[in-house]
Amino acid sequence: MSVLIKDFKDGDEFVGYYLIKEIEAKQTNNSIPKDFLDIVLADSSGNISAKYWEASKTDIETFFPMCLVKVQGLVQVYREKLQVKVIRIRKTTEQDAVSITDFIRSAPVDANELIPIIEQAIDSLSHNDIKSLVTFCFEKVKDKMQSAPAAKSHHHAYFAGLAYHIVRMLEIGEFICRQRPFLNSDLIKAGIILHDIAKPVEMISEYGMVLDYSNQGKLVGHISMAANWITEAAIILGIDLESNVIMALQHLILSHHNLGEWGSPVQPQLPEAVALHYIDAMDAKLQMVEDMLQTTAESEEWTPVIRGLENKAIYRLKL
Amino acid sequence: MSVLIKDFKDGDEFVGYYLIKEIEAKQTNNSIPKDFLDIVLADSSGNISAKYWEASKTDIETFFPMCLVKVQGLVQVYREKLQVKVIRIRKTTEQDAVSITDFIRSAPVDANELIPIIEQAIDSLSHNDIKSLVTFCFEKVKDKMQSAPAAKSHHHAYFAGLAYHIVRMLEIGEFICRQRPFLNSDLIKAGIILHDIAKPVEMISEYGMVLDYSNQGKLVGHISMAANWITEAAIILGIDLESNVIMALQHLILSHHNLGEWGSPVQPQLPEAVALHYIDAMDAKLQMVEDMLQTTAESEEWTPVIRGLENKAIYRLKL
Amino acid sequence: MSVLIKDFKDGDEFVGYYLIKEIEAKQTNNSIPKDFLDIVLADSSGNISAKYWEASKTDIETFFPMCLVKVQGLVQVYREKLQVKVIRIRKTTEQDAVSITDFIRSAPVDANELIPIIEQAIDSLSHNDIKSLVTFCFEKVKDKMQSAPAAKSHHHAYFAGLAYHIVRMLEIGEFICRQRPFLNSDLIKAGIILHDIAKPVEMISEYGMVLDYSNQGKLVGHISMAANWITEAAIILGIDLESNVIMALQHLILSHHNLGEWGSPVQPQLPEAVALHYIDAMDAKLQMVEDMLQTTAESEEWTPVIRGLENKAIYRLKL
Amino acid sequence: MSVLIKDFKDGDEFVGYYLIKEIEAKQTNNSIPKDFLDIVLADSSGNISAKYWEASKTDIETFFPMCLVKVQGLVQVYREKLQVKVIRIRKTTEQDAVSITDFIRSAPVDANELIPIIEQAIDSLSHNDIKSLVTFCFEKVKDKMQSAPAAKSHHHAYFAGLAYHIVRMLEIGEFICRQRPFLNSDLIKAGIILHDIAKPVEMISEYGMVLDYSNQGKLVGHISMAANWITEAAIILGIDLESNVIMALQHLILSHHNLGEWGSPVQPQLPEAVALHYIDAMDAKLQMVEDMLQTTAESEEWTPVIRGLENKAIYRLKL
Amino acid sequence: MSVLIKDFKDGDEFVGYYLIKEIEAKQTNNSIPKDFLDIVLADSSGNISAKYWEASKTDIETFFPMCLVKVQGLVQVYREKLQVKVIRIRKTTEQDAVSITDFIRSAPVDANELIPIIEQAIDSLSHNDIKSLVTFCFEKVKDKMQSAPAAKSHHHAYFAGLAYHIVRMLEIGEFICRQRPFLNSDLIKAGIILHDIAKPVEMISEYGMVLDYSNQGKLVGHISMAANWITEAAIILGIDLESNVIMALQHLILSHHNLGEWGSPVQPQLPEAVALHYIDAMDAKLQMVEDMLQTTAESEEWTPVIRGLENKAIYRLKL
Amino acid sequence: MSVLIKDFKDGDEFVGYYLIKEIEAKQTNNSIPKDFLDIVLADSSGNISAKYWEASKTDIETFFPMCLVKVQGLVQVYREKLQVKVIRIRKTTEQDAVSITDFIRSAPVDANELIPIIEQAIDSLSHNDIKSLVTFCFEKVKDKMQSAPAAKSHHHAYFAGLAYHIVRMLEIGEFICRQRPFLNSDLIKAGIILHDIAKPVEMISEYGMVLDYSNQGKLVGHISMAANWITEAAIILGIDLESNVIMALQHLILSHHNLGEWGSPVQPQLPEAVALHYIDAMDAKLQMVEDMLQTTAESEEWTPVIRGLENKAIYRLKL
Repeated sequence: MSVLIKDFKDGDEFVGYYLIKEIEAKQTNNSIPKDFLDIVLADSSGNISAKYWEASKTDIETFFPMCLVKVQGLVQVYREKLQVKVIRIRKTTEQDAVSITDFIRSAPVDANELIPIIEQAIDSLSHNDIKSLVTFCFEKVKDKMQSAPAAKSHHHAYFAGLAYHIVRMLEIGEFICRQRPFLNSDLIKAGIILHDIAKPVEMISEYGMVLDYSNQGKLVGHISMAANWITEAAIILGIDLESNVIMALQHLILSHHNLGEWGSPVQPQLPEAVALHYIDAMDAKLQMVEDMLQTTAESEEWTPVIRGLENKAIYRLKL
Repeated sequence: MSVLIKDFKDGDEFVGYYLIKEIEAKQTNNSIPKDFLDIVLADSSGNISAKYWEASKTDIETFFPMCLVKVQGLVQVYREKLQVKVIRIRKTTEQDAVSITDFIRSAPVDANELIPIIEQAIDSLSHNDIKSLVTFCFEKVKDKMQSAPAAKSHHHAYFAGLAYHIVRMLEIGEFICRQRPFLNSDLIKAGIILHDIAKPVEMISEYGMVLDYSNQGKLVGHISMAANWITEAAIILGIDLESNVIMALQHLILSHHNLGEWGSPVQPQLPEAVALHYIDAMDAKLQMVEDMLQTTAESEEWTPVIRGLENKAIYRLKL
Repeated sequence: MSVLIKDFKDGDEFVGYYLIKEIEAKQTNNSIPKDFLDIVLADSSGNISAKYWEASKTDIETFFPMCLVKVQGLVQVYREKLQVKVIRIRKTTEQDAVSITDFIRSAPVDANELIPIIEQAIDSLSHNDIKSLVTFCFEKVKDKMQSAPAAKSHHHAYFAGLAYHIVRMLEIGEFICRQRPFLNSDLIKAGIILHDIAKPVEMISEYGMVLDYSNQGKLVGHISMAANWITEAAIILGIDLESNVIMALQHLILSHHNLGEWGSPVQPQLPEAVALHYIDAMDAKLQMVEDMLQTTAESEEWTPVIRGLENKAIYRLKL
Repeated sequence: MSVLIKDFKDGDEFVGYYLIKEIEAKQTNNSIPKDFLDIVLADSSGNISAKYWEASKTDIETFFPMCLVKVQGLVQVYREKLQVKVIRIRKTTEQDAVSITDFIRSAPVDANELIPIIEQAIDSLSHNDIKSLVTFCFEKVKDKMQSAPAAKSHHHAYFAGLAYHIVRMLEIGEFICRQRPFLNSDLIKAGIILHDIAKPVEMISEYGMVLDYSNQGKLVGHISMAANWITEAAIILGIDLESNVIMALQHLILSHHNLGEWGSPVQPQLPEAVALHYIDAMDAKLQMVEDMLQTTAESEEWTPVIRGLENKAIYRLKL
Repeated sequence: MSVLIKDFKDGDEFVGYYLIKEIEAKQTNNSIPKDFLDIVLADSSGNISAKYWEASKTDIETFFPMCLVKVQGLVQVYREKLQVKVIRIRKTTEQDAVSITDFIRSAPVDANELIPIIEQAIDSLSHNDIKSLVTFCFEKVKDKMQSAPAAKSHHHAYFAGLAYHIVRMLEIGEFICRQRPFLNSDLIKAGIILHDIAKPVEMISEYGMVLDYSNQGKLVGHISMAANWITEAAIILGIDLESNVIMALQHLILSHHNLGEWGSPVQPQLPEAVALHYIDAMDAKLQMVEDMLQTTAESEEWTPVIRGLENKAIYRLKL
Repeated sequence: MSVLIKDFKDGDEFVGYYLIKEIEAKQTNNSIPKDFLDIVLADSSGNISAKYWEASKTDIETFFPMCLVKVQGLVQVYREKLQVKVIRIRKTTEQDAVSITDFIRSAPVDANELIPIIEQAIDSLSHNDIKSLVTFCFEKVKDKMQSAPAAKSHHHAYFAGLAYHIVRMLEIGEFICRQRPFLNSDLIKAGIILHDIAKPVEMISEYGMVLDYSNQGKLVGHISMAANWITEAAIILGIDLESNVIMALQHLILSHHNLGEWGSPVQPQLPEAVALHYIDAMDAKLQMVEDMLQTTAESEEWTPVIRGLENKAIYRLKL
């Protein structure tokens, strides 16, 4: 069993399996420059910088991002931070019996549990057209939903982060519909499942890490893409494009960012659209806080600043 | 039994008890001007404009705002709106056995039920200093809390509106603490009860209607007033002013408006402060929607615009 | 032949045909109030306030907005403005041989000339899919395009204003494609025709005057409606929803307001999208100026302020 | 003939003439540091980083920015980018028969063609005072206009960029005056020529590259400088300072940035001032797009982000 | 001696001299309308609304704004405010021996004292060019400076308000130069005298009341007008337009509003320009407070809101 | 006597005493990396970068920030900047007879003179409760006030900077109270002394350099902390918490940043609060200018940009 990165201490010598998250061939700044590999090693507990000073030309062509490696190394302090000096490194083979999914950050609940919860929520929709429309859109991205993050770095930026975000929002949505029965729970559920449904196509991700935005993601954006999917679904399912149900679902999707400057071309004008925006905000903001606290060393009183929270850090208060 | 104002129809003749919400002596614009009374009658279902053309000098000195009257009148349409032509009017006496509280807008739950719920929440606080501090502040305004609105017109602007807002937020708070156990439920509950605790002193209200802001309300504001109360409570209760518990409660109060331009001198930097802001926002915004739908005639598809919702109206969608 | 409203002078007595643009039954503020009609008369040259003091109950039920009337009246100055005292008034009959279209503000070019120009532009598109998609969307609103204004009051707010706006933009577009050949002229033309194509459905108008926004107009908005139409057209025409041509047309429509706070969910990222925004802005702003100068009396040096031009007035400079 | 920088490929060995755009003497980070020269080589097709590891003390004192050199070098990939390893380098002499103007970025039209076009436009002004005033201001900077860029980096940031910007705006202006005859074409032309006329004095540039802003440029700014020139011209030409023509030209100059936060102390209030702002914006924005596409490798789908276009990149769409 | 308007009480009958500040002929809203005069009477202590119900056609043609009248009237309460019922009214003649200047609001110091103080400050300038330039500009408006207000309503909006503003700023300027000797006192004094020097030409005023902005005031604005005057002065006085002294004075004028959105095309970049902005702000804001307290009845705890102070009212605190 | 850092010239060899402001152990980027010390040396005249290439392991453990050292060094130019090559370095001992206070930036007036001036101002307060309250708060931080800076880097960021800021503001306050006698000078003086009184607790500083914000500083902020101190003082001194004097002092403190986005939960609504904001702004802004000019080499025409002045640089104008 490999030592977790977050448990590394100065002076440790170790052998274990890790993921290469980033790798770059660099040259020392000598008059006769020498190649070395500047690496970021990762596992599910965090990242660490590593240097492989003895890298050969072959090494440089062997290792690349997202590849699993077995490393023998030494943990040292460099400029007040821990860093690994790589002594030996090789790619893993089938015999090592390790899987990339063991080395990445994931939602706290397994994707295989999240998807069925969303499907149950769809199943529970009582309005037939809403159920068909949500099903249509969900099927489009069901496979990607297994792994898609909810954002590049803002919140839920990990494996199955989007599915986890939806499931948690469904919990809040269920509560709020019980508390305020004037809300239509079909619209709340549908809005929650649909609001970010096009994100897996807006962003190109691998193992929960966003590599880039797709061209369509940049030029159309996930909000308008999802609105288009409703149109597409309606035509294919034979639902009247002028019906209130189409108008309502489109409105929920389009308005969920609340303001034009946050990307919504219209502002919430249905009770459920107002609710959807705040359900989304509450889940996203609190998850940012929770994630940041978890990835900040216990010994630190303050987290790094969080862009989505007015660039403020969070304090780990002891009462 | 008096006919409810929201049930008035053109041509109705009626006799019943109503509240004078506003009254002004005016003069007709004739060359020989004549006095009349321009009145706003109210009951728990709404308001209506009324004219008393035959007002005598004595009448002008008899009637004033917040006084209960028995009115014989005629409902007419004037400029596309209903209006009452007063035929006879007199102040009520004890014999009429009517009470002002029957004629005002109130929270949907009785104040006598709301206060004990808040007190139970205080009772359930497990941290002794927090419990003492919250109790101290709550006792300061307990009497006013029976009737205080949460705002002048923004949201929960009615009898016991503030207590109702707190109780509903406690429900959300309880849910969110169950969903996210890393939140300290004592801080969440305390934050909810304290966040607007100084509003009954910031605003001068009668029967749930804000008449004005107090001088202290304008010059110090309810946020800083509540922060001062924590200081006062700590000194009187002998709690260390430099303790984390004092810092935390002050932070929750000071940061709950989230941004400087919304009145918070610091931004949320505790997990519970982030949660508090969104619990407050969700309850306030959804209550605005619910209240506006209820006070808009069923026959109207759209409510009037709501200032607190980006000046948007809400649509009464039929699926 | 009726005297044009803009030629009315104090003391004029006249008989002529006019349009009732607004009408309201009011009562004089006497102790014994008396009914009268407060009217706004209009013709193609402008509006004027009119009072009919002698209105009978029948009159009140006879006249309504958008009805044509024959009026005998007297022009008077009241509070520094001209006003008509109505002496006699009756609805027009077929014998009067007047048509409502003679009494409304229209684009300077006849709708029957504008539509064919747009159709020629569509015809000239060289990319077949673009041509089919634009045709599909244009056919949806071709009838309404005969009369639809481009806005409620902002710019081109008159009969056939939208078609006129499109035609003028096509002229600018043609010039700019000649000047900058790197621009794709198919995309420029398509973007111009499509950018406001859903406005006739977003707004409910009559004779070029916007009466209200439709529910869909409020909840979805013309930008997203037009994007949806592209999706609809693609499906019905069998064009690949993932093709670049669909992405490009959607992008042009979605981004043409340039900024999120102006209603665009994405910002221009194609050269033609950048061009489209400025072609639209230039035509709209200069038309505001031209319209305002035309409807301001020649004797006035300054127009009223124009909301769309930073609330500035325009000066009629003599060199 | 030298190979163009944009045609360099990994492994190329070359000999050719280039411009030193930037040069800095650095030291290797060894315990016994060694001098080397860190250079940016340029030609009209682009820039490339170059290192001269064998630089002697004499070399360090020989080469400086804006000097032309003959280089023997080797093209290598370093950190995913091409870079030149300099083998031999010397300054050019008269015998090399190369001129700096062959190595800099220039407007696509020759300065010697641009200036006469502007002069013809001045010639075509029909209002005598306007013609004299424009001539006076133009003569002030005519020499600098041969080379001046329109901005430091924002748009038209190259040799004769300003003259090119003016000429292209004159084309748009001519079109828009034909399309909208109510515009005074003398004011449009004068506004175009004058709007940035003080930029060659506001910014200190060499070969179309801005080195810095002048003190006057920082403390007064090109907008107010140009307004002052009108005053100066009027006095020297004997034109009444209180005349409408002076007021109009000053207004066009002062208002052409449209908003206070963009540097205009007054907002457009003449039809021609509104037009001028949009002619300027359209030309500047589209040139940014065109320039950025041209300097981005054909193989790249997306340009770098453009600050003047809401920090958006432009997509090279294939239909 | 006339009773001061601020001393009027309900029921008073009076005879005295007053100024007609506003007057409008209106008609009663009867079926047979009757003319009356709706008047605002003023004296140096304040304004009051007055009605002259018995106005004849001759009266309507006799009285106009800014005319002095002798009035016999009755003070009444109407809609919670005092109002005068005019019994008799006539224009004053020479025999009445009253002067309009006795009836208007003025700076607390006499204009005849203020102008010499400014002239002394000019005299005390040690730099000859600065002295000549300031003198030139001051002479342009010296006559108007006797009466000109500093603004329409914002601050110092009364007879000689501008001169008073300058004099008070000179006092602050003198203090700050003593406190911080690194400031150049010539530039501070010159900046103070010049910063608003073009306001008497930007605004058309009579007896300290702004009637309108001039065309030049709207199209060029007082900031750029003053900058132009410096250019004009330099040419006429033979001072080098490129000299630092011209650049400095222009900079002080142009930057004194501090931000682009407040009308300054450049921001302060000389120490004296930073100082000038804060001297101006401090004097203007405190004068707003002082003026508003003086024109608010002593019995009122709070003044009306002040637009220039974030729309806040000022509280009359008793310690 | 040591040579002042600001007097260092290229090629100088020197021996002298300096303060280590920052120090970091780094490694050369060789294949066999070597330790060296990267140091920032400081004295009261400024800072300079220094490298100690021959640092031993012992050296790395010996030197730390804020320690005084004797250095033998050589001044060299590296990348256009002066830099020190350390030849020998040792910590100072008692025999060296140097004190850290000789090596830090300080207010231009000695702290031992500043504190008595503030105490005299407190003594001169005529209102007893104000005097007691101010005394209470001042005593809380009197010791820290000897050295506390007024800000981290914004303004007065040096030893005794806060005391100096207060003393200078008292001078302005005294002047403005003389100029405008309607201002209550007790409130002005109290407001000046109290407005930043909690800064020494909000920020953790050493020798006038801010190391960090305290937790309370981040979570409560100096504005609310000072308001709380007033509450605390009132309780301990037995002054009525509801009295006007408490309300006034709290208001002055809370509103002195003027706007919500600048950290004030309420806006100025007392004349003295308006004055306090502008006294504070004027002193802070002019001090930024003065400090920046002093720490910029005389040979530089322009200072670096100043964040607190709209990111503008200041020009050293010669007249």
